[in-house]
Amino acid sequence: MTDLPKSIHINEEGPREGFQIEKGDIPTARKIELVEALAETGVDHIQCVSFVSPKAVPGMADAEEVVRGFRKKEGVSYTGLWLNDKGFERALTHSDKLYIEGALNLYASNAFLKRNQNRVPEQQREAQYGLIRMYQDKGVKVKRAFVTAAFGCNFEGDIPTERVVALIDDILAIAHENGETVERVGLGDTMAWATPASIKRLVGAVRERHPELPLLLHLHDTRGMGIANALAGLQMGVRLYDTAVAGLGGCPFAGHKGASGNVCTEDLVFMCHEMGIETGIDLEAMIEAARLAQDIVGRELPGSVMKGGSLAKFRQASAAAHAA
Amino acid sequence: MTDLPKSIHINEEGPREGFQIEKGDIPTARKIELVEALAETGVDHIQCVSFVSPKAVPGMADAEEVVRGFRKKEGVSYTGLWLNDKGFERALTHSDKLYIEGALNLYASNAFLKRNQNRVPEQQREAQYGLIRMYQDKGVKVKRAFVTAAFGCNFEGDIPTERVVALIDDILAIAHENGETVERVGLGDTMAWATPASIKRLVGAVRERHPELPLLLHLHDTRGMGIANALAGLQMGVRLYDTAVAGLGGCPFAGHKGASGNVCTEDLVFMCHEMGIETGIDLEAMIEAARLAQDIVGRELPGSVMKGGSLAKFRQASAAAHAA
Repeated sequence: MTDLPKSIHINEEGPREGFQIEKGDIPTARKIELVEALAETGVDHIQCVSFVSPKAVPGMADAEEVVRGFRKKEGVSYTGLWLNDKGFERALTHSDKLYIEGALNLYASNAFLKRNQNRVPEQQREAQYGLIRMYQDKGVKVKRAFVTAAFGCNFEGDIPTERVVALIDDILAIAHENGETVERVGLGDTMAWATPASIKRLVGAVRERHPELPLLLHLHDTRGMGIANALAGLQMGVRLYDTAVAGLGGCPFAGHKGASGNVCTEDLVFMCHEMGIETGIDLEAMIEAARLAQDIVGRELPGSVMKGGSLAKFRQASAAAHAA
Repeated sequence: MTDLPKSIHINEEGPREGFQIEKGDIPTARKIELVEALAETGVDHIQCVSFVSPKAVPGMADAEEVVRGFRKKEGVSYTGLWLNDKGFERALTHSDKLYIEGALNLYASNAFLKRNQNRVPEQQREAQYGLIRMYQDKGVKVKRAFVTAAFGCNFEGDIPTERVVALIDDILAIAHENGETVERVGLGDTMAWATPASIKRLVGAVRERHPELPLLLHLHDTRGMGIANALAGLQMGVRLYDTAVAGLGGCPFAGHKGASGNVCTEDLVFMCHEMGIETGIDLEAMIEAARLAQDIVGRELPGSVMKGGSLAKFRQASAAAHAA
């Protein structure tokens, strides 16, 4: 495990991941409560909302109110997600509270692209030029690129590593020829096809071509591989992770029941801290936030450490017993 | 991941792990149904029951009936668990159906030993001589040793690696001086303190002293680390795993709520197969057994792949779509 990073950076996506799949009956005040609780944990990136059609995603109909509502904490970057220019315009009106950066997005699965965006790859590629123009028109720098369904797809099967590597080459080139520099590339395991073997294979292949390019893993836990896949990422030196407190979420478009959320924030934080990898997050505070998330959605969520408890109090109690 | 084994061997403990924590209201016929379903999956070791006090563990009061009841399948070793001579005697009366081998057991946590067995380490050590005599009296060979709480303990805190290594030295020597040979040693993460780092540390330390000694990992998933810990075990070349279908179980004596069961059989099988590691198990049949287990206990169990589904049908559907 010589490649383990000394520290990682977590992008907390619980509020966005979690509330987007709810039917819209969670009070706005409670969503704000979770965002504010998360900001107290030490996590410094929180994706709060998505600016999408309230008809398609009723749980995000109050996105504006959530953003207006939360108290901003110094040092925390709050973000929103958008999928088109309309969503971007909505996000921009909140640039006082939200950290706005441009993102590009290619799909490793043509079948999922067709289904989700009704586009063929060439159209999605063309759309990136439009995105860049949209960002440049508003003076927003492009900093991120994301590859959806990078490990496999329920509608297309396994995804060849070379295809993802080629997509990344392409998206970096598109950004470059437009005077933009992609600072990090996300690999999305949108439908939970990744295993530690494919994480290592794909991360290794991308790193071979772009040794200095920071990679981010967006891992879903639908098949229980989330934390093992994160471990494989850590072993490959990956330092950026999208996670969701309590394991909130699940992709409403993934086409199968039981689609769990992102890998659970506090479980990953627990593993990292126990392995000597810093996250900057207060585990106990994150566990409290996870319990709050569970209370808000009103049902048991997948996170484990919030149920089993961290080891801190056991260590304290046994140290006290030894001292006595 | 150069140390990954080509194949692993799974000891299915679901029936014993799962039903021992139930209050005794599961019909015997349904327990038998699960044992028989598991035998059809290709798994060749199934721990069916524990021969313990029906007062302490009401869910195992029908252990004899379960053993008498199931149809034996050729090539499957059915086992039972016992904690004392009385339990061993009960198991012996079923040697027509059960595979019986002798096992020794030391505790890495003195606090847990006191709590669980009301013994100090020297007494537990002495008790091993008694166990060996008990087995030898009945012509049963000692083949296994197990270290309880090898990674940490809710009542004692972290467990030093050297202590576990010394315990293993000791137990191997005790067996040897009595003309017995321990064929494999189990490391029990009884209270779910292990992380991939401590798995690697302890397995590495034991292997350094006993390079040829097969190790078995008994992993609990209470803090969500089960599958990541199994991955760490695989990466260290460990080939023997105790697992529980659907993630059944939980230790009734571990002293905290939310103690999950063993690492989930079908999730581990899924990960192994996707990584090219053979298990001899039919994943789809094991998923069916997991769903049956869930039906029998009447509540949602932790396993993920039984909910998210394997990748086989998605691969078939997409291959068919490509061919069309």
